[in-house]
Amino acid sequence: MALPTFHDVERAAARLKGVARETPVQTSRQLDGYSHASVFLKCENFQRVGAFKFRGAYNAVTQRSSSQPVVALSSGNHAQGIALACRLSGKVAHLVMPEPVNPIKRAAVQEYGGIVHVPADPRDAELFSRDLVRELQGEWIEAFNDADVIAGQGTAALELLGHVPDLEILLGPIGGGGLLSGTCLAAHGINPRVRVFACEPAGALDALYSIRENRIVPQERPQTIAEGLRTSVGTLTLPVLRDHLAGFFVVEEEEIVAAMRFVYERMKLVIEPASAVAVAPLLRREPALRGKRVGVIISGGNVDLSQYFDGLSSACPPFSGER
Amino acid sequence: MALPTFHDVERAAARLKGVARETPVQTSRQLDGYSHASVFLKCENFQRVGAFKFRGAYNAVTQRSSSQPVVALSSGNHAQGIALACRLSGKVAHLVMPEPVNPIKRAAVQEYGGIVHVPADPRDAELFSRDLVRELQGEWIEAFNDADVIAGQGTAALELLGHVPDLEILLGPIGGGGLLSGTCLAAHGINPRVRVFACEPAGALDALYSIRENRIVPQERPQTIAEGLRTSVGTLTLPVLRDHLAGFFVVEEEEIVAAMRFVYERMKLVIEPASAVAVAPLLRREPALRGKRVGVIISGGNVDLSQYFDGLSSACPPFSGER
Repeated sequence: MALPTFHDVERAAARLKGVARETPVQTSRQLDGYSHASVFLKCENFQRVGAFKFRGAYNAVTQRSSSQPVVALSSGNHAQGIALACRLSGKVAHLVMPEPVNPIKRAAVQEYGGIVHVPADPRDAELFSRDLVRELQGEWIEAFNDADVIAGQGTAALELLGHVPDLEILLGPIGGGGLLSGTCLAAHGINPRVRVFACEPAGALDALYSIRENRIVPQERPQTIAEGLRTSVGTLTLPVLRDHLAGFFVVEEEEIVAAMRFVYERMKLVIEPASAVAVAPLLRREPALRGKRVGVIISGGNVDLSQYFDGLSSACPPFSGER
Repeated sequence: MALPTFHDVERAAARLKGVARETPVQTSRQLDGYSHASVFLKCENFQRVGAFKFRGAYNAVTQRSSSQPVVALSSGNHAQGIALACRLSGKVAHLVMPEPVNPIKRAAVQEYGGIVHVPADPRDAELFSRDLVRELQGEWIEAFNDADVIAGQGTAALELLGHVPDLEILLGPIGGGGLLSGTCLAAHGINPRVRVFACEPAGALDALYSIRENRIVPQERPQTIAEGLRTSVGTLTLPVLRDHLAGFFVVEEEEIVAAMRFVYERMKLVIEPASAVAVAPLLRREPALRGKRVGVIISGGNVDLSQYFDGLSSACPPFSGER
């Protein structure tokens, strides 16, 4: 598969027009004050399915010309993105969701009409998926190592730079690198001087090593609450990232939680841990960011709040009023 | 004190221009789908200090012509609003905050330069405040029963109707009635056919009884997690509400938690329980709201999430990677 280009990002943006939400850009006096920077959050937590993943999924689904069913492997946001994209395109989506499956995400996929398959052994998920593709003569769409997916993800940065053209720096979280490679293509297609930094949890540092060694260093035993960032980079994302990234910010787990808390409490936004990874370098006032105009891709807001709300419910006083 | 008018709301809007945030209006396909209505949330959780209260506080503080210190009684959002308004106006703010004081709110007030007083006995808070006003020759600003405060709160609805002129119904939570009476004045000044409904917890139903009996029925022993709604209506808010309200929606505690959860999980917004009170009637598909264009004033997002984040922190895997 050929590497995606800026032109692909632009074409993806045209396809997504009126389908994906043009998400708002939020600012905060408090975040600017703490970070000593001017910060612009591109709120993909407000995107359809609650994450940027809808962009890439929709672009890829509509680029597969056949009307064959689509097969994807994901227990997370990619699954929801593919399910909704297929529904909107009149295609059938088969989602292979290895355990542990969050029941809310599973329900969301099914609400969009996706057919869910749970392999008996999560370690067989890839084999299971390949068999399913063959059986159904389906179209396989990878979560990040796919040129159409990457081009779709880049449209978030394209919109952000459309809103705030004079950004000097862009930050985003890195897992498989789909979001970040798309962001690089978009940013440098518009302005080659924008510096794009990848933000990676210390407990899942494969992307940093992969770029240093210029080969895919697999992510083994990742230890981070940022679920979406536990994957390894791919054959398409690695070369794009290598050519475009200005550097990495490595973030500790406690910083992820502190950044999440800041964004919830001060900015009133529900974000997932992966998004907080890209906010954390601002809160510790990375020297490279001070005094700069910084855009941050807030990747999504799909987080399990059951414990919080179960606690609230049990704290409810029993009803004692009259009507 | 004379009752506030629509003209007062318009003048307040002029004063707040460039000072208060013109908060965004958010929509959600999912909320529209569930409620069978077209819903527009005016997001005052994104307002300065995290709640609409800044509007009224700033309008009142700047209308007190003297440079005397300002005294207010509040453990909640009004305290933060007054503290910030005073800082912006070069005045000294004294906040009487009866226990229990949320340490985050106390810290926020102090961050804005407010001087915090905690009366030894919370039952003496009013007496304590009156003494303080006399001692300091201060300006007293009530949390809701103040014409300038009411006019300021009305500017949220004014902005909302500016964004979405063809709204048929407005919903807001009711405690002391400052937000709702300002909303009534704003809405009917623009379009007398807009129907404004008050949303009140079943466990704190004083406003409904007060309007029915056309006298202030004091709120005794309120039982609701919506802290901000535990107060009684006042001599200024009652007549405005009586003349303008189309009706009440009474909301159970479980509905408040369910509506909060819906807004966090589906719309990715951090809101406080009082705001959820105004969303709940939509989720139970009140007949009066079906098929209508409904605006909702989301009052704020100041909620204590400590338990959730403490839980997240302790779930963090210990750091094991290398740098």
